[in-house]
Amino acid sequence: MNDIMIDTDTISPQAAAQGWIDAFNQALAAGDAQAASRLFAPVCYWRDLIAFTWNLKTVETRAGVHDLLAATLETTGPVTFTLAEPATQSGDLVEAWLRFETRIGRGEGLVRLRNGEAWTLLTAMSELKGHEEPMHARRPMGAEHGVKPGRKSWGEARAEAARTLGYETQPYVLVIGGGQGGIALGARLRQLGVPTIVIDKHERPGDQWRKRYKSLCLHDPVWYDHLPYLDFPANWPVFSPKDKIADWLEMYTKVMDIDYWTKTVAQSATFDAASGTWRVMVDRDGVAVTLRPTHLVLATGMSGKPNIPPFKGMDRFRGEQHHSSAHPGPDAYAGKKVVVIGANNSAHDICAALWEHGADVTMIQRSSTHIVRSESLMEIGLGDLYSERAVANGVTTRKADMIFASLPYRIMHEFQIPVYDAIRRKDADFYAALERAGFMLDFGADDSGLFMKYLRRGSGYYIDVGACDLVIDGSIKLKSGVAIEEITETGVSMADGEEFPADLIVYATGYGSMNGWAADLISQDVADKVGKVWGLGSDTPKDPGPWEGEQRNMWKPTQQENLWFHGGNLHQSRHYSLYLALQLKARQVGIPTPVYGLQEVHHLH
Amino acid sequence: MNDIMIDTDTISPQAAAQGWIDAFNQALAAGDAQAASRLFAPVCYWRDLIAFTWNLKTVETRAGVHDLLAATLETTGPVTFTLAEPATQSGDLVEAWLRFETRIGRGEGLVRLRNGEAWTLLTAMSELKGHEEPMHARRPMGAEHGVKPGRKSWGEARAEAARTLGYETQPYVLVIGGGQGGIALGARLRQLGVPTIVIDKHERPGDQWRKRYKSLCLHDPVWYDHLPYLDFPANWPVFSPKDKIADWLEMYTKVMDIDYWTKTVAQSATFDAASGTWRVMVDRDGVAVTLRPTHLVLATGMSGKPNIPPFKGMDRFRGEQHHSSAHPGPDAYAGKKVVVIGANNSAHDICAALWEHGADVTMIQRSSTHIVRSESLMEIGLGDLYSERAVANGVTTRKADMIFASLPYRIMHEFQIPVYDAIRRKDADFYAALERAGFMLDFGADDSGLFMKYLRRGSGYYIDVGACDLVIDGSIKLKSGVAIEEITETGVSMADGEEFPADLIVYATGYGSMNGWAADLISQDVADKVGKVWGLGSDTPKDPGPWEGEQRNMWKPTQQENLWFHGGNLHQSRHYSLYLALQLKARQVGIPTPVYGLQEVHHLH
Repeated sequence: MNDIMIDTDTISPQAAAQGWIDAFNQALAAGDAQAASRLFAPVCYWRDLIAFTWNLKTVETRAGVHDLLAATLETTGPVTFTLAEPATQSGDLVEAWLRFETRIGRGEGLVRLRNGEAWTLLTAMSELKGHEEPMHARRPMGAEHGVKPGRKSWGEARAEAARTLGYETQPYVLVIGGGQGGIALGARLRQLGVPTIVIDKHERPGDQWRKRYKSLCLHDPVWYDHLPYLDFPANWPVFSPKDKIADWLEMYTKVMDIDYWTKTVAQSATFDAASGTWRVMVDRDGVAVTLRPTHLVLATGMSGKPNIPPFKGMDRFRGEQHHSSAHPGPDAYAGKKVVVIGANNSAHDICAALWEHGADVTMIQRSSTHIVRSESLMEIGLGDLYSERAVANGVTTRKADMIFASLPYRIMHEFQIPVYDAIRRKDADFYAALERAGFMLDFGADDSGLFMKYLRRGSGYYIDVGACDLVIDGSIKLKSGVAIEEITETGVSMADGEEFPADLIVYATGYGSMNGWAADLISQDVADKVGKVWGLGSDTPKDPGPWEGEQRNMWKPTQQENLWFHGGNLHQSRHYSLYLALQLKARQVGIPTPVYGLQEVHHLH
Repeated sequence: MNDIMIDTDTISPQAAAQGWIDAFNQALAAGDAQAASRLFAPVCYWRDLIAFTWNLKTVETRAGVHDLLAATLETTGPVTFTLAEPATQSGDLVEAWLRFETRIGRGEGLVRLRNGEAWTLLTAMSELKGHEEPMHARRPMGAEHGVKPGRKSWGEARAEAARTLGYETQPYVLVIGGGQGGIALGARLRQLGVPTIVIDKHERPGDQWRKRYKSLCLHDPVWYDHLPYLDFPANWPVFSPKDKIADWLEMYTKVMDIDYWTKTVAQSATFDAASGTWRVMVDRDGVAVTLRPTHLVLATGMSGKPNIPPFKGMDRFRGEQHHSSAHPGPDAYAGKKVVVIGANNSAHDICAALWEHGADVTMIQRSSTHIVRSESLMEIGLGDLYSERAVANGVTTRKADMIFASLPYRIMHEFQIPVYDAIRRKDADFYAALERAGFMLDFGADDSGLFMKYLRRGSGYYIDVGACDLVIDGSIKLKSGVAIEEITETGVSMADGEEFPADLIVYATGYGSMNGWAADLISQDVADKVGKVWGLGSDTPKDPGPWEGEQRNMWKPTQQENLWFHGGNLHQSRHYSLYLALQLKARQVGIPTPVYGLQEVHHLH
């Protein structure tokens, strides 16, 4: 039985959406999880971003919906959904933007209906009642009108708060790592009034980009990269040069009044379960400081901890060798022989910059790589959501983020495969030329391309901004498909007997799981308790199952109380920092946060 | 005869607007200034911001319109106007937003029709054809895709350009003064590709605010204060504290890639009419540099040059005395006796901060002051254009600026008088209490209030953020309506015999005309040739006639070739920097810029 089976041939999308919302509200008001779940299609996906579950969680099937609601409705309700704007129809799908209110918060959502039943539902909390951010009509006055003896000016009060936090007062949250992730989270927590320190080892915010190789530019376009609260201006470059994004991050940290400690390294952290707080020993520019935050966020980078496989003979190599993350750029290597081991983003960027500066460069490709030309990715892969065209069509960054978030990870590859099929057709000559040069290509385990590779394993691709032409024409020498036998005193020796003499070897061999940071900082026990960070459980290379349905351990509660992981690209740093910040805010002010579906641990790293 | 007399009772505002536009286009296409002028009402105002006149110019009456068109149409045409959005009607006025295109540029406009005739018309150029700013779809790529040996990274190229400009290459424009005005203009010229150096005496951009007294906050609200290209975020305070606006200006200068020389003072400037360039001697952090810009912009502040009247006996005063612009803030004056001469914004702010910090403060009011409470100004004076409410109603900053610009200065007071009448009624008790305390109030020469005072003379008011209560309750002692006899060794002696002993005297006595800067930097001859800067010619106190109809010498050609004045509040710095930048760009690329109605000089200062 389905009370609201609707024939979308005869009724308007608006009426269909309103009918569904009314029925859903009614079921929720009655506390009837069964009735509510029957409003979903048998094959369905409900993705909730902390509004019902205090978790990032996707449930599937009516049984999943029923389970979620049965577990959460009592603490979440009363819940009311309303239509946020007129519903639209596309093929047999009705799409409707939602607003909703729960007992403790307000949120936004997106539902897709087929034959009157929900096929996908996204619910995302946007604010906690009584703890709304001081924006727009709620923004601070700045000047305190009226005059009070002894009053501190804004500058004095700000300076004193910055001086005492971490010493006379303790932060509620300590964020370790002040790249884009830590900065975006720091900005949100500041707005929410959660005392927070962001620490970073570098001299200046933005050094995480500034200090990398000099030709580096963002590979994602500007529309995808906005930080919270402050969009890049309309004249910002499409692909931000690294020094420009570094300067932006630095000024953003300043104008957002983030308490950001530069030249600061966390040395150890222990959790005291009795008091529910961490004890973190940090070195702040040579001075030891002990911090006692309640929550610890590792924002040290989803590709933060360099990984170098143990090649035989590495220790006897007489030249210079370093991981790609330590590569200083090409200037010192004109006329030198350089071997770059790896064939992903960093390897390509480094090879191209070295070649530009007159080095003799060989790239050793050990396994196949997914290549997508930047132009094609922009045009076909991202353009509907993140582009000047999207903006002109009314797809704001917030809307784009919500649309992107509304596609369930379980079926996201189905949307991605046709995109990459189109790209392969468009760029067929380019791919053929790469293969003629001996380059081993792939398009992901199921041909679903770049985003799925990123979400599943965070590696295995290069967004081509020019290096491929150098591989094709032989300017960058390519060795592919043959194992490395050993590193010799003078270079790299391959299993087929070929030798590549080298003055410099760059290991562009990627990064480990983020719980490696927890092992270094806290303990191996805690790292193992938390388990692997990143990946969906897709059972594809470097993303072992079982299916998790969300990024493992990212932005949501982990098995270690009060330990969180944050990061990803600028898009993720922007979007998911909101939900992480709201989770922390709720805990700060004592709002109960029962977690539905806390993830289990299946892999240690 | 009037072909298009339209009965707005019977036709839609849309049809009325479209009919007028069609007729106007037709007259312009025919080069018929006479016919075009007949489309205006007998009492009418056309304000043009450089689109037709290469000037900021308001003409009145049909004869004025005819004269403007007869002089400009040949070089400006072909011109085509279109309706930018549906016209609206309010009372007997039809209001229509316009877009238009001339031979060399594109612009926006706003026309108000009454009985089918134009009562007011605003035309404002927004871009030069072929020199559009690299924004939105035209924004730079950032990454140069493709790989070229020897290519400089963005950071390297930017650093080299910054290093060589002013030495190996010459700026086309030199802007003297790097406050909000110089910075906004610098940003626009950078976007337009006009090589520009902004110089400023301070250590850091923003020091113009940072170094002032510590309780200072902007008296204008955030919606009025946005800089070009980059709005303040939604969490920015309504009234920005001075350190916060200072930090914003500093980061803005950085992220907008403005070539900004700190610790740099211009010492002399001479114009070489033969080469059409300036020779400017500057001291850059102790090193002499000669610059040869084609254009010189003085952005040293419309209230930049301190003015202290010569009081008898000043030289023998044994305490400390300084102009308000040099006041360091209250910290050193707890327990001291301070006399502040003046009763405008700075005087009130300084008195309140001194009282807060325990000084014994006397304010000497020499002439009447216009007082308006900040809340009332926000609610009644600005709210329709610059407020959260305005933003919610679709009045963007750009639209608000254009609406504000579309009200002819000649009749602006007629719109302002009712606003201040309403404020007087609302705050009647407050004003009565001030008068009981002996404070001399005015509302401007014709009761038109704050904005008109600002536009006419730039002085004579205080936006109350609390100090008035201290005057009312006697915390700040007030002496009013009596002339100062002399400054004695120990204080201030009044004409009625009263003596005010003082450890510190603050002269909050205002500022001179900006051409005083030209006298200091260039010569008295050039200052006299240019004449008084600021004011409309309203023939009210401190704004002598004859009627000019625009701000004298601001943002438009002056009688001194290649010398310009720029400045004003943040609103003006934002809005008028566009027209100044376009005038400079046109000259840089050799577009003819025949100036219609170059202002005459009637006053030397």
